[in-house]
Amino acid sequence: MGDDAAVLSVPSGHDLVVTTDVLVDGVHFSLGRAMPGVVTTSAADVGWRATAANLSDLAAMGAIAQAITVGLSLPGDFPVAQVKELYSGIADCLAPFDVVIAGGDVCRSPIVSVAISALGYVKPEQVLLRTAAQPGDAIVVTGVHGASRAGLELLLHTQDEESEPLNDEPWLNEISEIERNFLIQAHQRPRPRLDVVRGLHEMKAFERSRSFAGMDSSDGLADAVVQICQQSGVGACLDYHQIPIPECIARWRSPEQVMQWALYGGEDFELVLCLPEDLGQLLVNHLESGAAIIGYITDESHVVLRDARGQCQEQILSLTQGFQHF
Amino acid sequence: MGDDAAVLSVPSGHDLVVTTDVLVDGVHFSLGRAMPGVVTTSAADVGWRATAANLSDLAAMGAIAQAITVGLSLPGDFPVAQVKELYSGIADCLAPFDVVIAGGDVCRSPIVSVAISALGYVKPEQVLLRTAAQPGDAIVVTGVHGASRAGLELLLHTQDEESEPLNDEPWLNEISEIERNFLIQAHQRPRPRLDVVRGLHEMKAFERSRSFAGMDSSDGLADAVVQICQQSGVGACLDYHQIPIPECIARWRSPEQVMQWALYGGEDFELVLCLPEDLGQLLVNHLESGAAIIGYITDESHVVLRDARGQCQEQILSLTQGFQHF
Repeated sequence: MGDDAAVLSVPSGHDLVVTTDVLVDGVHFSLGRAMPGVVTTSAADVGWRATAANLSDLAAMGAIAQAITVGLSLPGDFPVAQVKELYSGIADCLAPFDVVIAGGDVCRSPIVSVAISALGYVKPEQVLLRTAAQPGDAIVVTGVHGASRAGLELLLHTQDEESEPLNDEPWLNEISEIERNFLIQAHQRPRPRLDVVRGLHEMKAFERSRSFAGMDSSDGLADAVVQICQQSGVGACLDYHQIPIPECIARWRSPEQVMQWALYGGEDFELVLCLPEDLGQLLVNHLESGAAIIGYITDESHVVLRDARGQCQEQILSLTQGFQHF
Repeated sequence: MGDDAAVLSVPSGHDLVVTTDVLVDGVHFSLGRAMPGVVTTSAADVGWRATAANLSDLAAMGAIAQAITVGLSLPGDFPVAQVKELYSGIADCLAPFDVVIAGGDVCRSPIVSVAISALGYVKPEQVLLRTAAQPGDAIVVTGVHGASRAGLELLLHTQDEESEPLNDEPWLNEISEIERNFLIQAHQRPRPRLDVVRGLHEMKAFERSRSFAGMDSSDGLADAVVQICQQSGVGACLDYHQIPIPECIARWRSPEQVMQWALYGGEDFELVLCLPEDLGQLLVNHLESGAAIIGYITDESHVVLRDARGQCQEQILSLTQGFQHF
């Protein structure tokens, strides 16, 4: 700091991985300035969220995160206390990892925005690529899906605590305080899964002489699987009952709604990895509950969602929300 | 591209250098959307300017530029043609150097903003530091100062070609079309001086067993010299007549006004380097006309501007605009 730029050392034999995300008030979050009346986000959560999105991109490349830069645009009347909150959210998100804020820029703007670039490193042969899925690979998800979307739903229905009780939303009374907090945290404070990369190293996964496919599920689980399949020129068969969904959501929504949130809700920031089956099973055992093998890569051209128990119709998943029935 | 992040290789033995700048419409430039009626900037110039500021920061660290990431925030109704223009300005600025756009993010926002991060590499012992100036060092500037501020003045006075002739600004008729273009280009399309870093390598400057001080003059020449001196714990003595100023400016403004622009105008994006005198002279000879030794580092605590010909009063330069007389 105090110079025109920051200097970092990249371990020899490693490539540099870089990613950038920009979040804008009123578009990606709401501090209640740009769009009064909608669900508001605390400045700390904005900082966390912007950081998590970038670190998740690094994890999705198999990289070890090293540093971020923060470009803040703030109105002249933006309270100093909120700037501090924003940085504390960034720091909280970085805390479990050995990642520093290497520099940045603060500038005046009529609209609050947060532009973060994250830097990490990876050995060239260990990069997780969207193009590397092979038929027979197990498709591993590193955690539950649908939680972030459910958390948003809770926030949408409890914004104004002074308003009349929501008699048309009886499910609000059906979830416990712990469940409620879990879902809201999933939405407001998604965890970047850099620990999964560490896990793959601990398992010596990269000693196999092949690349693995990986992506994060920030744009939805269906999107991640379809993108990997399209870019690898393969298909996939997913098992409806293997997709990990928080039990508490299943209680207050129809199975169709819950599956919709899990597949297309987005913002879960888990990793979707395609690995040889033995390695996939090892990884699932290595991670906390929630991780699962949800299906396999095929040499077909579609991503099919199948219900082994025969309760649901077979479906083809696409990039856009909504199912395509056969 | 097509993955969550970009992968770059950093040559072994080199450290990574990273810098970030955010430019906002209506604050750092004007596309005529945020503040109708003020001097407008073309989208291409915005792209160039944002890129140049970042590459200049890398040059100021002694780094070789490698890649940039671009985070664009755009209103939904922003014309596609202007987006292309903006990228063409970025590409034009990158063109002389071997620098790639390694990734980025485009998002919706009520306000146009451009967040660029630039990445480069440097050997740890070759980093230009603000703390490395030593008494006796020659202070080299790599080009003329005041040109950017003069270019802005021209733009401010010729915005509306349909308006009445500016009889109170007779100087407008005193500069040629070539001079006019030179000054406006200096303001709109400042050149990042990555060529100077290349020059230092060609001169084998880094074979000396010491570090050099350097900074860019984007915040003004006085600011750069004062910052280096403060951070190195030294002073400087500058020679009024050695500060390189475009001849055409001297014709239409008073010497005091011209020196004010040269010292405090900013946005010239030249480098200010502190080097052993022989090396400083070699560098000046190596660069195009405009480069000069403007003074020397002293073991005093002030930055003094002295007129060897005795026409002007001795002055102490400070970080803020304006002279402090003895």
